Amino acid sequence: MRILPALLSALLISAPLAAQTPTEAAHAKIAEDYNRIVAEIAELTEIPAPPFKEAARGARYLQMMQAVGLQDVKQDEIGNITALRPGRNRTAKALVVSAHLDTVFPEGTPIFVQRDGNILRAPGIGDDTIGLASMLAWVRAMDTAGIETERDIIFVATVGEEGPGDLRGVKHLFTENPLRARIGDFISFDGSSITGITHGAVGSRRYRVTFKGPGGHSYGAFGIVNPMVAMANTVTGLYAITTPTDIKTTYAASTVSGGTSVNSIPNAITMEFDMRSRSPQNLAALEAQLLALINQSVAAENAARSTRFGEISAEPVLIGDRPAGETPADDPLVRAAAAAMTRAGYDAPLRASSTDSNIPISLGIPAITVGAGAGGGRAHALDEFISIEREPFVKGIQTGLDIVLAAAAITRD
Amino acid sequence: MRILPALLSALLISAPLAAQTPTEAAHAKIAEDYNRIVAEIAELTEIPAPPFKEAARGARYLQMMQAVGLQDVKQDEIGNITALRPGRNRTAKALVVSAHLDTVFPEGTPIFVQRDGNILRAPGIGDDTIGLASMLAWVRAMDTAGIETERDIIFVATVGEEGPGDLRGVKHLFTENPLRARIGDFISFDGSSITGITHGAVGSRRYRVTFKGPGGHSYGAFGIVNPMVAMANTVTGLYAITTPTDIKTTYAASTVSGGTSVNSIPNAITMEFDMRSRSPQNLAALEAQLLALINQSVAAENAARSTRFGEISAEPVLIGDRPAGETPADDPLVRAAAAAMTRAGYDAPLRASSTDSNIPISLGIPAITVGAGAGGGRAHALDEFISIEREPFVKGIQTGLDIVLAAAAITRD
Repeated sequence: MRILPALLSALLISAPLAAQTPTEAAHAKIAEDYNRIVAEIAELTEIPAPPFKEAARGARYLQMMQAVGLQDVKQDEIGNITALRPGRNRTAKALVVSAHLDTVFPEGTPIFVQRDGNILRAPGIGDDTIGLASMLAWVRAMDTAGIETERDIIFVATVGEEGPGDLRGVKHLFTENPLRARIGDFISFDGSSITGITHGAVGSRRYRVTFKGPGGHSYGAFGIVNPMVAMANTVTGLYAITTPTDIKTTYAASTVSGGTSVNSIPNAITMEFDMRSRSPQNLAALEAQLLALINQSVAAENAARSTRFGEISAEPVLIGDRPAGETPADDPLVRAAAAAMTRAGYDAPLRASSTDSNIPISLGIPAITVGAGAGGGRAHALDEFISIEREPFVKGIQTGLDIVLAAAAITRD
Repeated sequence: MRILPALLSALLISAPLAAQTPTEAAHAKIAEDYNRIVAEIAELTEIPAPPFKEAARGARYLQMMQAVGLQDVKQDEIGNITALRPGRNRTAKALVVSAHLDTVFPEGTPIFVQRDGNILRAPGIGDDTIGLASMLAWVRAMDTAGIETERDIIFVATVGEEGPGDLRGVKHLFTENPLRARIGDFISFDGSSITGITHGAVGSRRYRVTFKGPGGHSYGAFGIVNPMVAMANTVTGLYAITTPTDIKTTYAASTVSGGTSVNSIPNAITMEFDMRSRSPQNLAALEAQLLALINQSVAAENAARSTRFGEISAEPVLIGDRPAGETPADDPLVRAAAAAMTRAGYDAPLRASSTDSNIPISLGIPAITVGAGAGGGRAHALDEFISIEREPFVKGIQTGLDIVLAAAAITRD
């Protein structure tokens, strides 16, 4: 009951065996593997991978990479799983094809994959276990079709792509992992839809700032400095800034906490700030403004009220650092991906976002982030889902392979 | 070993039996009861009485009031324990002598009384079990000495004196309890030192304000309204206010919390504000300024940024309300207490604070708050302590009785 529809589908989607090109044979294998791909997505999704706790999913994925016959399958010091599929030209710079292991969901989040017709629902299923499962499908498809790529492909499952991880997996890959010297291009498959090409890296600088003061009794110590005021002046100053409109540049005063009781002047207020832009220059300028504002607000509060029990101080700690930049729209990697998508009938609008590609982009290494699959939604929400309607799903995975093959054919000097 | 020093001390402190006045006999009984008073302080202290959870201590105190022979011992609907000691003139307005049952310490705080020489240490021991134990000692002393007061004395152990309780025990006493019509004067024994007379009631108005907005992605939704800014503008506006100097009037932005993650525009920020003054007029004027500021800050933020996903709103909730006022310095109650203290060699400076007396004062009923005992410290801290050095401790409790007797002798028309 399961095998028959899969075979039928393979026959419907792929060209007749006699006339098959290697790519067509690879596509046919993906179509044939439909149920297997769905099962692997479900299996990986149900292994929790909260921020900084990707080890269990990573260990299972390492086994799966070994099972599909990849070489040099390893876990690096930070937790990334890396594996090699050699190409013809072993000295050419390699193509990295990656997906991320981690989810945004905290430890303890119940994760059970539920199927509802053509919808598969679970936290993290589209962001990004579909990417992990697609990589396995592509290796099987290339092997079945006997495809040898021009360049080596290094498959990487990264840790720490989501917010708090601050791209620590991909940062490690490009700064510590011995493979870093071999990387010529980088593709992150992230998300469940082939709906565009992320070539712009929205960078971010994030700060946690603790405003400290002596604190005291709200009545008895009235008139002394209050860190709440330094915090408030920083916020009002930040929100008076008009950011450049040439390249979108944003800020947010995001979280705040502090104070001990309603009848006490607080001794510490902690606030988190987020700043983002695709322009490194805009981002740096905004960051300088924020840091100056913090200093000004602290000085103003120390001047405005009594410091007889102590002064206000502020300690900004950088808690997020994602470099900004862009892979040029006319780079061969962007053009190859766009061509593969257009050929399959998809639009290929260029976009900017914050993904694993931020790191190679910041290092001048061509990188894009794309999706594979037939769409989904509610990423980062408990009711996250992907569509697994057979034909568009298979076509989405096949087109992902087309992008990989086109990128692997690029030769760089 | 325990009884002998107590008897010796009683003989040393009290006058020779032959020449004893009733007051001297009462003082002698207090001196004789030294160990018993200390034991009762320890017993009551070790029955936890967190805010809103005074029931266990109240039940035990009710038994103790019955055991010392007080009449009409009752627990009222809110949890106060009340008891009567009739005077000669049963139609005259009565004197209330009170102490509070509750502590500031949350449920689960370990409370074990530790003796270290003349120091008795435990959370809540001076604030206010020493007051509760003193009332029992005074009843025994008056009975032993055969003292009949002019007016009835109503002994009250109140609930909810501390911060979050918001004086709910004494509020109930003066608004719901049938005894309220009988009360002519009010003394709260609160704390471990006879160091002054609190005749001024520092009032407070406290608000918890939740600033709400639509929230959204820090990059994707940049440009929409942020409740953090409305909060910040309220704080900077409040701290630009110069309060009147005729009667001290204070404000504090005390606690704050809100936001979901560093990469999200928050949808709710909650802040607590405290305002205090001995002047009801000053307090009301400051409160009006704060409420206006909140509205202005909300309107300014809705005007400053996009409301396409929703507007900022603010909901101020009154979480603390202690009326301000003053028992005149020349009121017979203040004068009687000051005379008793001066006679015993204590200073009697007049003070203002926020205590159970706030409520009768706000109703025009003469009220003061004083301490009994030999001092202590670290009230509201886990290392709270009282001194039980025999001679000053006994003298402190005796002087408390002198204040009670002087106040009970006041006749009001």
